[in-house]
Amino acid sequence: MRKLTVVKIGGNIIDSPAELEVFMDDFARLDGPKALVHGGGVMASEMLRGLGIEPQMVDGRRITDAETLRVVTMVYAGWINKCVVAGLQARGCDAVGLSGADGNAILAARRPPVPIDYGHVGDISAESVNVLLLEKLLSGGLVPVFCAVTHDGHGRLLNTNADTVAASVAAALSARYAVRLVYCFEKRGVLTNPVDDASVVPTLDAAGYQAMKASGAVNAGMIAKLDNAFAAIGGGVTEVVVKHASDLLTEAGTVIIAEA
Amino acid sequence: MRKLTVVKIGGNIIDSPAELEVFMDDFARLDGPKALVHGGGVMASEMLRGLGIEPQMVDGRRITDAETLRVVTMVYAGWINKCVVAGLQARGCDAVGLSGADGNAILAARRPPVPIDYGHVGDISAESVNVLLLEKLLSGGLVPVFCAVTHDGHGRLLNTNADTVAASVAAALSARYAVRLVYCFEKRGVLTNPVDDASVVPTLDAAGYQAMKASGAVNAGMIAKLDNAFAAIGGGVTEVVVKHASDLLTEAGTVIIAEA
Repeated sequence: MRKLTVVKIGGNIIDSPAELEVFMDDFARLDGPKALVHGGGVMASEMLRGLGIEPQMVDGRRITDAETLRVVTMVYAGWINKCVVAGLQARGCDAVGLSGADGNAILAARRPPVPIDYGHVGDISAESVNVLLLEKLLSGGLVPVFCAVTHDGHGRLLNTNADTVAASVAAALSARYAVRLVYCFEKRGVLTNPVDDASVVPTLDAAGYQAMKASGAVNAGMIAKLDNAFAAIGGGVTEVVVKHASDLLTEAGTVIIAEA
Repeated sequence: MRKLTVVKIGGNIIDSPAELEVFMDDFARLDGPKALVHGGGVMASEMLRGLGIEPQMVDGRRITDAETLRVVTMVYAGWINKCVVAGLQARGCDAVGLSGADGNAILAARRPPVPIDYGHVGDISAESVNVLLLEKLLSGGLVPVFCAVTHDGHGRLLNTNADTVAASVAAALSARYAVRLVYCFEKRGVLTNPVDDASVVPTLDAAGYQAMKASGAVNAGMIAKLDNAFAAIGGGVTEVVVKHASDLLTEAGTVIIAEA
């Protein structure tokens, strides 16, 4: 089976120009077919404040009213996506930016308004992903670069969690490729002690994850990421790794495994 | 030779939700392979003012400093492009949004800083357009939707005139298709009397255009558009028409002809 790498890059790296440059160098060097998914929540919150709008979050998830949707679409699909695509093109990587609307790449369902109305937020799964489109792009040598904006097929854009976009794209493409999914962020991996980079867990299985949740060793943001990581493994992804963005080309980080 | 339609839709229509809906209905109904290029300058100027930045224009062209580039990229490639793509998808039109950076679709050269330094502005011609990429997308049934942001191949985004993007894409694709280029805007066509919609010139050749320029019958914005229209005809485009957006599916408007 052909191999494919899906990389998710978090907002904290996107916000650091020097780290982003190094990451793009490394991503461009990755062999074989690949796709990138990027966040950008920190920059979106800054832009909202610049326009006099206070970001609203519940459990680490953004409440997306109409004006917030406009701003996150501008920041994610506009500025960040095009900067990353242009940066990869400059490195000889034939990147093409995609929202879920482009080529109907990811068709989402608006999240039900109960118990919490998150507004213009879309939920997706592997079944939401247009595998035929992605396979066409990948076989043409293109490198899809996803922002975390999707659509509902009725003309409405939806804000979608970037970790979930990465997990869904990786799981969907597992039907055609042996997929390696790499979550890159500002930590060295899953840590037993959040302030000690040396406390990286080399492998994490479902039982170990449950134990860390029970002991409070992982916070809400990490739980959201790891839930997606385990969903990807459960959805047929060959390998899932959580690591620091600067470790993309190394063996460092935490490997997520389905069973002990 | 296969036929292809390239449509440019101006910022004044983009800014009118009702007119944009009607335009998208009509564009989705156009038979055969097609591409869309959209403006958005009015909305970009509003967003700049919302962020406390006064838009700078010289001869109807925007001076694009670093912050302005960020805002126009957010507005053009982010909000407007994704709204149009999602709107077309809802109408069964398999649209895919592109900046010039995506798939290296349009490679621009930064405009020399003399006599006027326009900042992050890119100049392009038909040779700037990646015909192989567009042909691949078109033959896959996709409908490219261009915003007027390009790149220089070295990681820098550039603001580019949307009328020029339309003319360049149309001329480049003329090597493979019989291309019809339609400039849609808020006037009924080229008017001999700017305040009388009934004064549409049915056809305009180069000599007639020179006479209108000499008499002052066409203003600076219209001259920029018509220069692009004549460049497209000179570049091998089969037919160029200038018309009101609501006339897309009719025979109305001004047909640009290379010779009398």
